[in-house]
Amino acid sequence: MIPESIDARLAAVVGERQLFVGDGIDARYRSNRRGQIISAPGFLVRPGSAEEVSAVLRLARELRISVTTQGGRTNTVGADVPEKGAIIISLERMTAIEDLDPLSMTLTIQAGATLQLAQETAEAAGLFLPLDLGSRGSATVGGVISTNAGGLRAIRWGLARDMVLGLEAVLADGTIVRGLKKTLKDNAGYDWKHLMIGSEGTLGIVTRATLRLRPIPKSTMTALLALADFDAVMRLLRELDVDLGGQLSSFEVMWNDFYRYVTVANRAKRPAPMAEDHPFYVLVEAMGGDPEGDPERFKTVLMAAIDRGLVRDAVIAQSGRERNDLWAVREDLLEPMTALLPAFGFDVSVALSEMARAAALVTDRLRAKFPDARIYTYGHAGDGNLHFVVSVGKGGADTEHQVDEAVYGGIRQIGGSISAEHGIGALKRDWLSYSRSEGEIRLMTMIKASLDPDNILNPGKVLKLESEAA
Amino acid sequence: MIPESIDARLAAVVGERQLFVGDGIDARYRSNRRGQIISAPGFLVRPGSAEEVSAVLRLARELRISVTTQGGRTNTVGADVPEKGAIIISLERMTAIEDLDPLSMTLTIQAGATLQLAQETAEAAGLFLPLDLGSRGSATVGGVISTNAGGLRAIRWGLARDMVLGLEAVLADGTIVRGLKKTLKDNAGYDWKHLMIGSEGTLGIVTRATLRLRPIPKSTMTALLALADFDAVMRLLRELDVDLGGQLSSFEVMWNDFYRYVTVANRAKRPAPMAEDHPFYVLVEAMGGDPEGDPERFKTVLMAAIDRGLVRDAVIAQSGRERNDLWAVREDLLEPMTALLPAFGFDVSVALSEMARAAALVTDRLRAKFPDARIYTYGHAGDGNLHFVVSVGKGGADTEHQVDEAVYGGIRQIGGSISAEHGIGALKRDWLSYSRSEGEIRLMTMIKASLDPDNILNPGKVLKLESEAA
Repeated sequence: MIPESIDARLAAVVGERQLFVGDGIDARYRSNRRGQIISAPGFLVRPGSAEEVSAVLRLARELRISVTTQGGRTNTVGADVPEKGAIIISLERMTAIEDLDPLSMTLTIQAGATLQLAQETAEAAGLFLPLDLGSRGSATVGGVISTNAGGLRAIRWGLARDMVLGLEAVLADGTIVRGLKKTLKDNAGYDWKHLMIGSEGTLGIVTRATLRLRPIPKSTMTALLALADFDAVMRLLRELDVDLGGQLSSFEVMWNDFYRYVTVANRAKRPAPMAEDHPFYVLVEAMGGDPEGDPERFKTVLMAAIDRGLVRDAVIAQSGRERNDLWAVREDLLEPMTALLPAFGFDVSVALSEMARAAALVTDRLRAKFPDARIYTYGHAGDGNLHFVVSVGKGGADTEHQVDEAVYGGIRQIGGSISAEHGIGALKRDWLSYSRSEGEIRLMTMIKASLDPDNILNPGKVLKLESEAA
Repeated sequence: MIPESIDARLAAVVGERQLFVGDGIDARYRSNRRGQIISAPGFLVRPGSAEEVSAVLRLARELRISVTTQGGRTNTVGADVPEKGAIIISLERMTAIEDLDPLSMTLTIQAGATLQLAQETAEAAGLFLPLDLGSRGSATVGGVISTNAGGLRAIRWGLARDMVLGLEAVLADGTIVRGLKKTLKDNAGYDWKHLMIGSEGTLGIVTRATLRLRPIPKSTMTALLALADFDAVMRLLRELDVDLGGQLSSFEVMWNDFYRYVTVANRAKRPAPMAEDHPFYVLVEAMGGDPEGDPERFKTVLMAAIDRGLVRDAVIAQSGRERNDLWAVREDLLEPMTALLPAFGFDVSVALSEMARAAALVTDRLRAKFPDARIYTYGHAGDGNLHFVVSVGKGGADTEHQVDEAVYGGIRQIGGSISAEHGIGALKRDWLSYSRSEGEIRLMTMIKASLDPDNILNPGKVLKLESEAA
């Protein structure tokens, strides 16, 4: 008897129309965001259910072929790039909205649905999914869960992790783990879902989720503020945190380098909302329940900060359009950043008390190696999350490593995290020990070995295992 | 050579003064909360550091002696009860406050410190640890983390899990896992701390934690409200959630049976705040940042709810004393509950949309078996968390099992959790499959086998392992 081919066996699971092989796999599954082909997977399957995902994993395990899951392919650290010859599981067909419970304020949705679909489904029911990020139209529910995405409102509502009430995931051995509860509290045994959240497809494949929704806020207040130094930024954060009660939902900081560069680069599209010579800018948003009283209170609190000299200048949005224009300073980055290429982006975090020192140290370390480096600094100041964009010109083969070392070495010195919200993936894996202790990495390795002993789930990501030592 | 005794080896680790053996172990470590001796541990050690905890665990593993960790011994599900001959590790000497960082708003503290010490340390720095529960004076930081305690403000600030930024824990093999970061965001690899949180000492021993603090709110508003039916309770919850912006911090519901019983039982101490004939009572608390405006807004929102007939009666606290009196209706339960003994307490959760049905179903199932049962129902309505106190008289050997089955069988039918915030421990272990799927229990068992292959960490709790099948 001739053994059945892998193709035939995969086709038997997902159907012939949902299987693609080798060069028959469309380029988009093999390319990076700039359209360059960067991988050579053996197979692409597009399962329609957790049961099919399970069957694919059982087969992959039997045949020792590795599996990489893809959602919207907006990952920034190479977590969605398959090994040569691997199976890509694309969840793009699993996009169903399964249940919206308005009273419980929960949404159960398949992992391949986009974040935007989840947001819009909530909104149509008068509810609100606070998780938001620029790639909402492509990023999927499974993707934001697998990377524990953060975004612009983490200061108030947390990260993706904090919005997941229930999860369904498939383990490497094909076990379907169903736990789609709508309960806000569940201490019945280990809260295993937290192990899947943020594990970047290396411990299991998320197939469905039950998300916690909130009522849509009745008021939204947005302002751009200018400040003289980072100490003032931190004092303002504390004051707004206190004085706005629970309403503060975003607190985004921009260093002068970033603000000046982006507003100048986008000048043809829209004028800068305020002068470009302030050392720091903060974009503040608050959301409340009193459409009459809240804007007044917001203004009162900001005016008091101006009167005391804490804030040097302020623009409060008076309309939805003005709000969008203020956000564009922080968000409309595609053209300005493309113009900097080749450039390197960073996503790190430190304690709030260390943010200023971290930014200065990283800058110093970069300048010591690359005196002409262009460095743009911004971040979610309420979360201790710093982003750097670094351009050092064309450079050589070793340039990226040197830039990484300058940044991550500084973060290590300060005791921060080399990944605040983007994950580790393939690109940061060699730096993991810069922000995790030996014991932590040992424990992570134990967990991986237990749940995926054959290392078929997204190998080469997050951890460097002994079995794959070069 | 005579092999060294276990006593001598343990004494070599923690020092002779911190080792107690057999009947030399004070009764409090062996008793339940009613003072009855319920266990016969072999050894009690009181280590002073994570290194000593590690050495004790290595020894325990070598000798195959099990280890149960004790904090304040306020556990309600028997999670702190050692096996016969086991080693108790009491963390009562590890109470140091290691770091309070006012700018980052973090507190790093040893696991044996009481929750109250953590709260007071925060307050002394103008900060606020939102986690609060009745046993704050005894319950320890390590204990509330190991059980993922919830409490009275989970609706706004979450459970213990949501306040832990960093953790230090010791694994069964003695590995000290240090991850005491102060960062609010850290996606550098698996977020292992969530595996320790809520695992009731079965996966590791928490020795230190870095907790997230908040600014102390400037205003606190408290009210007791009467409502006609549960539908009104849920509508009120939604309205307050929206209209109070982010300020709603507690939303405690009491069924008439509970309110009437407690206020009558405590009548000699204080008069009931309102008539005893309303079907439902809700204790609401909100905290904000505007001491002038917030109470006015709170009152306006409640008055509107009364005008629309949603709320039948309301008492708003006008002073700290009145606030305490309102809270006493919900919290001053020791004498009323003691008078019911023998009685059984339950802590379950369901989706918000299922709370009324769950309470009715559980009551029906209890009455079918015990027509004269006295049932008192209350809970954290904002979290879907229901508590029942059930008294069925003296009963027989099988009574507890029958009462449990009536309650947990109802919760299973509705798809809820048999433990919202108290954990599983020993007492609920046989019921775990009533609210966790086969795949979930399989995954939990894999995790346990990986981290504690010899089952020395708190055996007999949470999971029923094959190795210990009767």
